[in-house]
Amino acid sequence: MTPARPPQSREDFEARLRAIGAERYHDRHPFHARLHGGDCTPDEVRAWVINRYYYQSRIPMKDAAFMSRVDDPALRRAWRKRMEDHDGSEAGEGGIARWLKLARAVGLDPDYVATSDGVLAGTRFAVDGYVRFVREMSLLEAVASSLTELFAPKIHADRIEGLLKHYAFADDAALSYFRKRLTEAPDDVAFGLAWVLDHADTAERQDAAAAALTFKTDVLWTQLDALWGAYVEGRIPPGAWRPGEGLLDRAAA
Amino acid sequence: MTPARPPQSREDFEARLRAIGAERYHDRHPFHARLHGGDCTPDEVRAWVINRYYYQSRIPMKDAAFMSRVDDPALRRAWRKRMEDHDGSEAGEGGIARWLKLARAVGLDPDYVATSDGVLAGTRFAVDGYVRFVREMSLLEAVASSLTELFAPKIHADRIEGLLKHYAFADDAALSYFRKRLTEAPDDVAFGLAWVLDHADTAERQDAAAAALTFKTDVLWTQLDALWGAYVEGRIPPGAWRPGEGLLDRAAA
Repeated sequence: MTPARPPQSREDFEARLRAIGAERYHDRHPFHARLHGGDCTPDEVRAWVINRYYYQSRIPMKDAAFMSRVDDPALRRAWRKRMEDHDGSEAGEGGIARWLKLARAVGLDPDYVATSDGVLAGTRFAVDGYVRFVREMSLLEAVASSLTELFAPKIHADRIEGLLKHYAFADDAALSYFRKRLTEAPDDVAFGLAWVLDHADTAERQDAAAAALTFKTDVLWTQLDALWGAYVEGRIPPGAWRPGEGLLDRAAA
Repeated sequence: MTPARPPQSREDFEARLRAIGAERYHDRHPFHARLHGGDCTPDEVRAWVINRYYYQSRIPMKDAAFMSRVDDPALRRAWRKRMEDHDGSEAGEGGIARWLKLARAVGLDPDYVATSDGVLAGTRFAVDGYVRFVREMSLLEAVASSLTELFAPKIHADRIEGLLKHYAFADDAALSYFRKRLTEAPDDVAFGLAWVLDHADTAERQDAAAAALTFKTDVLWTQLDALWGAYVEGRIPPGAWRPGEGLLDRAAA
């Protein structure tokens, strides 16, 4: 029998997780430089808003899928906050509703965006793959896959600054989603990170958790690749949103 | 082509659902007469508390499984209340914690009960079958299966009255689970019933919803059959709780 491989120390393992973000998080994707640098056309911004909505809309379903597998009331209770953050407690509240404010600000009909018509198939496959991952893999892998939120505050701060500076549509109401996530995400991720560090107590579990976080960076990166191919390079696939569709009727609005 | 079968009117369909409860709800099971009539031994009450805990503990997982399939934030928001009711917002709150108070009142160690060790395999199969049903069947069938709550207020009221009258352990703290459900369940079921009546808009869908509610009555009835065989008739299966196990250390408590 080969001797058991010792796990990394808590500090080394956390550093390994953070290195995954440094290397692979989607803030390194060229679409983000383009968006934050003010180089996106209005239609590129709209395509991003439409496709990213699909991701947002599936996050509470992903969180519910996670809770459906958790038999510890305390862990469910801690996790339930994520659904509350996204869905709110009243109509018009919560992260999904705030994303639809951004949709409106960029000239899209929020009702159109909420249908998810026109979302790229590449976006759907990646996002649905993430929901399925959380439904099917171990709880440790499910929690670890949420740890991209470790890297989110910086991207949200960059985004607020870049969008405000470069785009006429950007104001506090339009960007309320990102501002809110600046305060929500750190709570979530502190809990998730501690949970992963506590539960990844063998080398094999550490590998599984790191692979899950890597998988999640793929989920995010793939969405931007799909967006880039369709709307920056202009190879819009059949069935996907085309500029001019789903616009807000400004006269009626 | 045979002509389409017309759906029942809303009123007739609601009456059909209510008739399922009148015929099949577990208030008609002999164990309930025995429990409410004061004829259960302390160990029979304990066995009921242990096994019913397993059902309670899986209800929030079932509700999360439902929400994981709902893409409408408004429906998720309405449904989330059920998880809040069962899990509470702090440790020691919520329906599951209240059930553990009952466990303590009947002389069981709540930590033992919370492990779900000693739960009858028959209970597990029925309860796990219910969670799987909600995870896999249509949303309409999932909501319809929750409508046994239409029939719950009467059983809770009977239970409070019967237990208070006949058992020394029964006091307000011990029975807080049932009192709380008297106010929670009617809100839930009014929402669920309206949703089912709105969405069961063809004869086929009405049949599916009625079958789902029938299935759920089977889930509840089967648990009491398992309890009866094991603890009233005394055929305790291997691995199941045996009188004397999991008792509260009264000196330490």
